[in-house]
Amino acid sequence: MIRHTAFALAPWSIRESRLDLDVLAQTESVFALSNGHLGLRGNLEEGEPYGEPGTYLDGFYEARPLPYAEAGYGYPESGETVVNVTNGKVIRLLVDDEPFDVRYGTLHQHERVLDLRAGTLTRRAHWSSPTGGQVRITSTRLVSFTHRAVAAIRYEVEAVDQPRNVVVQSELVANETQQYMSGDPRESARLESPLVLEENVTVEDGMAIMVHHTRASELRVAAAMSHEIDGPDGTRIETRGAGDVSRVTVATRLSPGERLRLVKYFSYGWSAQRSRPAMHDQVVAALAAARLVGWDGLCSDQRRFLDRFWEGADVEVEGDAEVQQAVRFALFHLLQSAARLEDRPIPAKGLTGSGYDGHAFWDTEIFVLPVLTYTYPRAAADALEWRLSTIARARENARQLGLSGAAFPWRTISGAECSGYWPAGTAAFHVNADIAHAATQYVDATGDTEFERDTGLPLLIGTARLWCALGHHDAEGRYRIDGVTGPDEYSAVADNNIYTNLMAQQNLREAAELSVRHPERARRLGVTDEEIARWRDGADAMSIPYDERLQVHQQSEGFTQHGMWNFAATGLSRYPLLLHFPYFDLYRRQVVKQADLVLAMHLRGDAFTAGQKARNFAYYEALTVRDSSLSACTQAVMAAEVGQLELAYRYLGEAALTDLADLEHNTMDGLHMASLAGAWIALVAGFGGMRAGNGRLCLSPRLPESLTRLCFRLCYRGSLVRINVTSGETTYWLLEGPPITLTHHGERLELQGKPVTRPNPPAPQPGLTVTQPPGREPAPRRPAEGP
Amino acid sequence: MIRHTAFALAPWSIRESRLDLDVLAQTESVFALSNGHLGLRGNLEEGEPYGEPGTYLDGFYEARPLPYAEAGYGYPESGETVVNVTNGKVIRLLVDDEPFDVRYGTLHQHERVLDLRAGTLTRRAHWSSPTGGQVRITSTRLVSFTHRAVAAIRYEVEAVDQPRNVVVQSELVANETQQYMSGDPRESARLESPLVLEENVTVEDGMAIMVHHTRASELRVAAAMSHEIDGPDGTRIETRGAGDVSRVTVATRLSPGERLRLVKYFSYGWSAQRSRPAMHDQVVAALAAARLVGWDGLCSDQRRFLDRFWEGADVEVEGDAEVQQAVRFALFHLLQSAARLEDRPIPAKGLTGSGYDGHAFWDTEIFVLPVLTYTYPRAAADALEWRLSTIARARENARQLGLSGAAFPWRTISGAECSGYWPAGTAAFHVNADIAHAATQYVDATGDTEFERDTGLPLLIGTARLWCALGHHDAEGRYRIDGVTGPDEYSAVADNNIYTNLMAQQNLREAAELSVRHPERARRLGVTDEEIARWRDGADAMSIPYDERLQVHQQSEGFTQHGMWNFAATGLSRYPLLLHFPYFDLYRRQVVKQADLVLAMHLRGDAFTAGQKARNFAYYEALTVRDSSLSACTQAVMAAEVGQLELAYRYLGEAALTDLADLEHNTMDGLHMASLAGAWIALVAGFGGMRAGNGRLCLSPRLPESLTRLCFRLCYRGSLVRINVTSGETTYWLLEGPPITLTHHGERLELQGKPVTRPNPPAPQPGLTVTQPPGREPAPRRPAEGP
Repeated sequence: MIRHTAFALAPWSIRESRLDLDVLAQTESVFALSNGHLGLRGNLEEGEPYGEPGTYLDGFYEARPLPYAEAGYGYPESGETVVNVTNGKVIRLLVDDEPFDVRYGTLHQHERVLDLRAGTLTRRAHWSSPTGGQVRITSTRLVSFTHRAVAAIRYEVEAVDQPRNVVVQSELVANETQQYMSGDPRESARLESPLVLEENVTVEDGMAIMVHHTRASELRVAAAMSHEIDGPDGTRIETRGAGDVSRVTVATRLSPGERLRLVKYFSYGWSAQRSRPAMHDQVVAALAAARLVGWDGLCSDQRRFLDRFWEGADVEVEGDAEVQQAVRFALFHLLQSAARLEDRPIPAKGLTGSGYDGHAFWDTEIFVLPVLTYTYPRAAADALEWRLSTIARARENARQLGLSGAAFPWRTISGAECSGYWPAGTAAFHVNADIAHAATQYVDATGDTEFERDTGLPLLIGTARLWCALGHHDAEGRYRIDGVTGPDEYSAVADNNIYTNLMAQQNLREAAELSVRHPERARRLGVTDEEIARWRDGADAMSIPYDERLQVHQQSEGFTQHGMWNFAATGLSRYPLLLHFPYFDLYRRQVVKQADLVLAMHLRGDAFTAGQKARNFAYYEALTVRDSSLSACTQAVMAAEVGQLELAYRYLGEAALTDLADLEHNTMDGLHMASLAGAWIALVAGFGGMRAGNGRLCLSPRLPESLTRLCFRLCYRGSLVRINVTSGETTYWLLEGPPITLTHHGERLELQGKPVTRPNPPAPQPGLTVTQPPGREPAPRRPAEGP
Repeated sequence: MIRHTAFALAPWSIRESRLDLDVLAQTESVFALSNGHLGLRGNLEEGEPYGEPGTYLDGFYEARPLPYAEAGYGYPESGETVVNVTNGKVIRLLVDDEPFDVRYGTLHQHERVLDLRAGTLTRRAHWSSPTGGQVRITSTRLVSFTHRAVAAIRYEVEAVDQPRNVVVQSELVANETQQYMSGDPRESARLESPLVLEENVTVEDGMAIMVHHTRASELRVAAAMSHEIDGPDGTRIETRGAGDVSRVTVATRLSPGERLRLVKYFSYGWSAQRSRPAMHDQVVAALAAARLVGWDGLCSDQRRFLDRFWEGADVEVEGDAEVQQAVRFALFHLLQSAARLEDRPIPAKGLTGSGYDGHAFWDTEIFVLPVLTYTYPRAAADALEWRLSTIARARENARQLGLSGAAFPWRTISGAECSGYWPAGTAAFHVNADIAHAATQYVDATGDTEFERDTGLPLLIGTARLWCALGHHDAEGRYRIDGVTGPDEYSAVADNNIYTNLMAQQNLREAAELSVRHPERARRLGVTDEEIARWRDGADAMSIPYDERLQVHQQSEGFTQHGMWNFAATGLSRYPLLLHFPYFDLYRRQVVKQADLVLAMHLRGDAFTAGQKARNFAYYEALTVRDSSLSACTQAVMAAEVGQLELAYRYLGEAALTDLADLEHNTMDGLHMASLAGAWIALVAGFGGMRAGNGRLCLSPRLPESLTRLCFRLCYRGSLVRINVTSGETTYWLLEGPPITLTHHGERLELQGKPVTRPNPPAPQPGLTVTQPPGREPAPRRPAEGP
């Protein structure tokens, strides 16, 4: 738990009031800055100590061979790992020849503040060196939302008590040493010096450029820095570069109260194709643009950008200050992961750490994109356009698997399948329906017909064709999808996984509908009336496994006949189960890592009756251990729907605090983007009861006892709607855009100029007792008081 | 196909009349000599050319790390690979300074003969060097059945036309270079110089000893050689050793017709515990014993040993000389793989090659041991005692998997699980029931109550406990075994695999019965009445999946609802499918690599009606591609049982010729012991209709049209029975031992002094058309004429 060490509750910031080296790696993730293209972990400027140094460029990776103890046909041979590129954050400081290092001397004060409206990370330190030299250091950094390639740091050092000789070394450093490896499969593979130097030049005082390329993936990266330096007379500046380091050295003597200030601008570019000179020029140009705007300009642009974002995205929560902070923290990081994607993926950890090798998974489409779709839709479109840009590889992947259509990869950076364990990777074909779902949802939310035709249609056709190749009719005419893996990673390679089948059903139907809507374009993609008929037929005949005896759906065929996991005999120290039990044991029993059927009930609520939802929820709650961060928010949504509002509130807390409280114990590897999205989903789809589709925006708000007010904004078909929920009633405002029709607990409301208020009907009485596996209940939530 | 190149048909030998370097590696396997402890591939004495140099000691391996692209809990970290130990076969020859190398000069004649009664490999070559020096070379080698640690070669070189300077270098060589690696998963992992030298000493002229150990597995191996040399006056002998080579050099001048003769004795020992001096002395002692007997003594002991074997094991076939040769070849190699095991495993390739890393699998228990049990029972007992010797590891393996009892490994040398892909390895728990089955069968065949109590009982209890941990009752009270893999490797991790369930059922029942029979010993092993009751209950309630609509059993639950493999679209070049399609694709479809349900019908025939057998056989024949050598023999047995005698005959041909005709294209990696056993099984259990169990020996002989006579011997309860089958009738003789009751097509016969003859009833009329996947039909068999 990070929270109890240092973070202060505040509605619009994350403030760490003292430095705790035990959670340094976690705070590097929490304080990461990014714009979706460039990401900096919250490493200390002086470089050491660190948890994991991290500077990432979205899509930039190194390839590495994937080893197998026993080879198999079609296994991916090459993996991809995000590269820690040239570090431009480094600013070292010497005070009277003593290096500023928080592990030595005395740290009188140390504060870091992530400002969610300013988009900056500010640090204030007051330090005495081991020999007594006192200084105050203040730094503020940003990764610009408006200048995609640019980051900047304003760094200030002040002598406190006596005159001090102060030397500041501002650097670009490549091939930093990576540290820990625990063997946890969720970590990143370790790369030793992945970057090969091509160029390290000093252009003028304070300005240097470095160009490298990766050995195996053959990608080129350029980084440049330049400085504005403001110090007392006699301040000397020297710029040198050699090997993998460029260094600007600023030496001065500061009287007490006197300050040395520098603004460091640094910029990045990468390409698989552009030449060294072109990359060199590109990063120099980015610096020039940044310097033209200047530090103050970058800061005001940043704030303006965020102001606009919050107008359409803010969520207000009353009655739980911790959740209030967490949901804004979540929205801020989601924006950071996606604002400037421009046809690159959103990795599971954004650009906040190297966990999961920097790969993007289905999490993006099912958890992250819904939030962006209704709050910052341009980024959702970008992420889906990236998927489309990889469709040739997905087709090739399908072909290699003996299928047709497009088989998008389970985990990837470039679009190539990087899964080294096919039962929990390649076989999880639902990622294809998830992409189709996200595209359908985006089109529904925005009415963006150009996207529908140019991006949605080819994605839906490619994935629908895959389902046609994967499925078959049995003798009774049911359409089966056998031998695939659903979201729950504690089952694999099962027949008729209900989530997969229901999502594939939607995929097939939407592909048919879109092809009819865009006949010309569909025809050009080879779609015939026969093919459309096959899609519709497969969808209509889709197998939905149901246990008549228990009156619940089966996660997959036969699931409810499997032996129960022996929860009573499983000590709490043996969670997550995947680190303590073999897959063999997990797969064959009734134990669920994460919402699967329950997720299907959220996304395909139309396929279940209210009674089925309640029974299914109760049955699977008792089996679900939540060893994945992709579960609590969905459980919150379905708990709220079946009337378990207090349980939903607990799950909300868990989803919202995954990273701020380090609930999964791996926040050090990067933030959990999907879980951050889960905070919004739990509030908006859970307590807001928000569902949308087929041009209809539906809300069914109901608050748990502890929350006194929930207010959120949604953008739907060009209308920005504000929804204010209290325990008794809900008020709807149209903030921008055309009039809109929506439903409140099924009642149609026309929203025009004036707000409309309706009472919230009481929650359905839960008829079933809901329990979780012993010890895996979500923690009771004591709502946190405001600051 | 090797056959068409050089092998001659003969009833008691394999004769290669000319050397074909394209199939050199295959012939090295075919001409391998072994006694189950020490194995020599049929490498040419002069060392080069070679397919794969091979000298193996049963149980001697090197450990190597098993790599995984994505780690998982409980995956084996260390693999084991058979080591090519110190090569004592090497005898190089120089003729007037030209090295004898069949690739140079002129090979006027080259013949190799494996004599199945003498137990020797003889080679005759007539060669002219590039400069015209003519010599005749004759060598005979053996691996002694009576001197377990000893091999010997008699080597003779004769000058033909003119006097020649001849130098013979007889060597011990360690760490020979290994050659090819194709990436085929069935090959061995490559080890670079696995042996670390400890000692290389020359004791006297012609005698040297080398001791090495392996780096990781820390096993010690010693090899020694000594020579008897007989040459013209002036023959000089020099013995030198350095590094990984010891060399005895014999130089002489031969007049035309004059000969240099040497007999090389070499011996081996290995140990995990014994010291270098102890090992040194051990191999020297073995040499001394061999020299005491001398070459002629070794040869006559060898023949006597084999004479006794053939008396109890020979199978005579009339009407197909090829099958006659093949079944004797098979019996000879099975004996070679097992004669002197002494608590070590029988690897899948015996000691004939390094394929499958030298591992032992379930093949041994289900295919090899039945043959040994009825023809050379001591070896079957040895192999099972080896299993028992590893039970502590099997218990530990079970514990790590969260189970109880003993989980014997899928593949191993030492007893540790070496499977690097758990769905097709660890999950194939049927190996445990297979071991129990072999133990039960051995006890039934021999009446060996000491073995039953000391070896059978602990094996059956350990495995029965595993089934109790693996299975559970469902709500209807059926006993289910979920998520395991049966024999068919084109399905994996399925529920209620019928083979596994039926074999587990037998395992549970036999464990209960034996525990009741040996109450004292069972009690000491912790067995209670409660536990026995649980075993019986699990067995009685065992799930046997059946498709009511199709009226056939299901290989596993839901199997018959899976999509069909698209055989029509699968070109013949894409077999074996595992090398051309992903497991994902194979697992989810109705396609069968090897007999699974059909094997269950053979081994558990009591669990099926005749009608079910016929329907099941027809259904699964159409799905079975026989991409495994562990299939044809079982298909032969069941084809014969359902009355498809001609089809059975084709399968017999395939099983019998797997190695002699290299049908699987990997005989170069070693002979397929299970398939060799399959030749016997197809004849004896197929056309002989032999089944045994519960003290009853049953025969139901019927011949296919082409075979005019089949005569085989079986040892049952101490009685040696000879069964002579012609197309019309069968005659039973008691050759040795007490009177015995057996059944002929269900009729009880008391066999005493006189032979008993009974007519063979006509075969049942096959009511169903049986077809195989297109292109995968067994080849029509034209019975080969005798020589």
